[in-house]
Amino acid sequence: MKQIDLNADAGESFGPWKMGHDEALFPLLTSVNLATGFHAGDPRTMQKSVRLAKAHGVAVGAHPGFPDLVGFGRRDLAIKPEEAYTDVLYQIGALFAFLKVEGLVLHHVKPHGALYLRMLKDRALAEAVAQAVKDFDPELPLVLLGGTPMEDAARAVGARYVREAFPDRAYLSDGRLAPRSMAGAVIRDPERAAERAVAMVLEGEIEALDGGRVRIEAETLCVHGDNPEAVAIARAVRKALEAAGVRLAAY
Amino acid sequence: MKQIDLNADAGESFGPWKMGHDEALFPLLTSVNLATGFHAGDPRTMQKSVRLAKAHGVAVGAHPGFPDLVGFGRRDLAIKPEEAYTDVLYQIGALFAFLKVEGLVLHHVKPHGALYLRMLKDRALAEAVAQAVKDFDPELPLVLLGGTPMEDAARAVGARYVREAFPDRAYLSDGRLAPRSMAGAVIRDPERAAERAVAMVLEGEIEALDGGRVRIEAETLCVHGDNPEAVAIARAVRKALEAAGVRLAAY
Amino acid sequence: MKQIDLNADAGESFGPWKMGHDEALFPLLTSVNLATGFHAGDPRTMQKSVRLAKAHGVAVGAHPGFPDLVGFGRRDLAIKPEEAYTDVLYQIGALFAFLKVEGLVLHHVKPHGALYLRMLKDRALAEAVAQAVKDFDPELPLVLLGGTPMEDAARAVGARYVREAFPDRAYLSDGRLAPRSMAGAVIRDPERAAERAVAMVLEGEIEALDGGRVRIEAETLCVHGDNPEAVAIARAVRKALEAAGVRLAAY
Amino acid sequence: MKQIDLNADAGESFGPWKMGHDEALFPLLTSVNLATGFHAGDPRTMQKSVRLAKAHGVAVGAHPGFPDLVGFGRRDLAIKPEEAYTDVLYQIGALFAFLKVEGLVLHHVKPHGALYLRMLKDRALAEAVAQAVKDFDPELPLVLLGGTPMEDAARAVGARYVREAFPDRAYLSDGRLAPRSMAGAVIRDPERAAERAVAMVLEGEIEALDGGRVRIEAETLCVHGDNPEAVAIARAVRKALEAAGVRLAAY
Repeated sequence: MKQIDLNADAGESFGPWKMGHDEALFPLLTSVNLATGFHAGDPRTMQKSVRLAKAHGVAVGAHPGFPDLVGFGRRDLAIKPEEAYTDVLYQIGALFAFLKVEGLVLHHVKPHGALYLRMLKDRALAEAVAQAVKDFDPELPLVLLGGTPMEDAARAVGARYVREAFPDRAYLSDGRLAPRSMAGAVIRDPERAAERAVAMVLEGEIEALDGGRVRIEAETLCVHGDNPEAVAIARAVRKALEAAGVRLAAY
Repeated sequence: MKQIDLNADAGESFGPWKMGHDEALFPLLTSVNLATGFHAGDPRTMQKSVRLAKAHGVAVGAHPGFPDLVGFGRRDLAIKPEEAYTDVLYQIGALFAFLKVEGLVLHHVKPHGALYLRMLKDRALAEAVAQAVKDFDPELPLVLLGGTPMEDAARAVGARYVREAFPDRAYLSDGRLAPRSMAGAVIRDPERAAERAVAMVLEGEIEALDGGRVRIEAETLCVHGDNPEAVAIARAVRKALEAAGVRLAAY
Repeated sequence: MKQIDLNADAGESFGPWKMGHDEALFPLLTSVNLATGFHAGDPRTMQKSVRLAKAHGVAVGAHPGFPDLVGFGRRDLAIKPEEAYTDVLYQIGALFAFLKVEGLVLHHVKPHGALYLRMLKDRALAEAVAQAVKDFDPELPLVLLGGTPMEDAARAVGARYVREAFPDRAYLSDGRLAPRSMAGAVIRDPERAAERAVAMVLEGEIEALDGGRVRIEAETLCVHGDNPEAVAIARAVRKALEAAGVRLAAY
Repeated sequence: MKQIDLNADAGESFGPWKMGHDEALFPLLTSVNLATGFHAGDPRTMQKSVRLAKAHGVAVGAHPGFPDLVGFGRRDLAIKPEEAYTDVLYQIGALFAFLKVEGLVLHHVKPHGALYLRMLKDRALAEAVAQAVKDFDPELPLVLLGGTPMEDAARAVGARYVREAFPDRAYLSDGRLAPRSMAGAVIRDPERAAERAVAMVLEGEIEALDGGRVRIEAETLCVHGDNPEAVAIARAVRKALEAAGVRLAAY
């Protein structure tokens, strides 16, 4: 029986400002990536999110980002590898504390936004982040995009990792995500996203946006939590996977 | 043989801005309280401070403060107990991560500035902070001022704690610190501070600023790290304690 | 013909996080108080809010707050008068720039949240804020609650000011706002708020929550923008005032 | 008689943290660029710096930077032109307020650190910043590096500008600053910096680090304020210029 994890970014409120649909989304997921205070997610939000995850039996990972609250961590910032190491370590530790007091364990680390994107290109930075994860706990997996310098970096430093794929994003035949500027790059129809999720898990490949097919190897599927269709997509993906006999569980 | 711990606040630089005399001070201390990012101390500074403490064999505690960087955590902020709980927990976890990767343990937690002062008056807030410390680790001691609501709070929630005293601050006969506005409240002469430190440890009492004597029960002595005489005072205190046969060691 | 201004706090989004109902609310108002970056309202939000106000011909005032983003400026902070002076001046200038490039003038200054509340009790702080407003522009009015130390402070430093009243809040017979903890303190029914607004303007008094009647002298009425009923209340208040022959215009 | 302006970045303290040598430096300068709160310089520091400049009769410009306090605005941040426009406008207005209450005028705007460097490469961003300066006040000059996209941008939007040169930095023969990584790129000897300043003003050219000579056209010379030699260099530069019959005055 095939098994897959279903993750989404969450805990992205800040102070009085709400974001996302965590209450509706958590029951559909097997793991969540919680914002850790630098790009979103203040301490109170982190506590609430951890408790919500606990109530739904969802595994909790850290979602560290750039120190850019107003930009939501989505603007590239030229931090040095040694700064990435300490910024990520700080955020991992902060979330760890909220988990510890609830009797939970830190399940994984998935970098956020522009930090994630920079790790796809900047090998030294990617190694620094992977090293921070490994130094904190050698058993802790880094969630990354396979077949990229991000994966090379994790392997180079000997960090554990899992690969993720995106059922609601189109891929190019060379394995890269289709840029958002391309027509059809973002999949908004829940049923289509669900079909792709099943194909990713059962066949290990999907059709590419530029023709042909592309191999997908992933231990976790990510659904985006910040768009209006998020809950509908997560529900459709989960339902289709279960109908196809796939077991949904955190890795 | 009597034993005492000697602590100071440290790691109070931020980004490009330097503060304190950590390199000169750490060899003289047995424990340090490191700023954890809210009122001072960014992640890089925390890493450097932890490594400096490790190099000198000094025990490291967290020094969480109010989220008020420009005010250095010295301005009273009307946070609710549940906010104090999560703010402190966040900061404890962040420092814990830096210690963990260096193979060190978190030794204690000592609140900073206006948070510390508020815990002397606001019992509910003091209990929330003590609870955060205890929930993170029941063995972790909270450093506090004895004979105050802060001590009552720690006892009420069952948190471990140690009491500190200030050789470079005058006391009133009722046990409270003399307000800084009183003449003689701050002791700048290293030799006088040293004599008082010895009296605190060996006799358990010193003379009060308003006449008579005051009982001092403390497991750790704090020297202020942010004034020009800090290093001279720490050196004199250490030397006098050693000369008096007191063993200097972290509790 | 009686005239009154109708104001609301606005521009309270931050980065990716939205707050309030500005698009629906602005057409109903004659002036708005825009957040200026310390408790809410980043530079992009300020630009958008100023342009929205311009499009609707609404007068724009600054709404400076405490430097407490996560707490939304609603937690009391023990800043010194000289800090209040510079914090307010900084925020006034920042908003002024957005108005200047749009060819608009700064119409007023209304302190936000805990800063406003502290000015009701702390005369020295209230004078510092009033002085900042006056120093920036002697013609610029400070919006305040009449019959309080806030009004005394404005008068003492010779700052221009206007008084506001709250149709959606109950008053005590001594002129103070009824604390939110009292039953009936917050009025959620648009029609009731509208009746009170008319009584405030035409009769200069309303019934008090604790019995009897209370005098209300105000040049502007404030409707709260951050609750679900905000738009309905503003619409009802405006309609009732117009029906009663009151002219709605910025002072 | 030739005339030149002598500028330095200043007002770079933050909260309790001190930076720079403003008291010693201001008497030697004719203009200063004051940090405006995003990368350094809180409101209290801005007030003090403006008053210090006033006491010394030094012209005051705004020194806006990226919103990156911990990185001191020295890390490249991928902000969009429209974000640069509003970030710069916000900071200009904030400083303007401190000048207005002291009866001073805003003399110029000089971008800081990574924002300045990005304007040397990113034409759209440079135009947005130049537009913000011009929109705030068409008479307000932008300080920039001549012969670069930064100058092209200012000219394209019709913003006033002045060009600066660096007596304590080496140039390449193509007009660019020698990268700090090259040997000899930073000039630490006050006498050499002074000679170069005189040559820049009287001859309009200096020798290049890679051989030959390089043309320098500038209305203002910048001395770096944040290194230990800053005051000695400013003093030597000023003395040599005066001895060579150059009049020192703000443009």
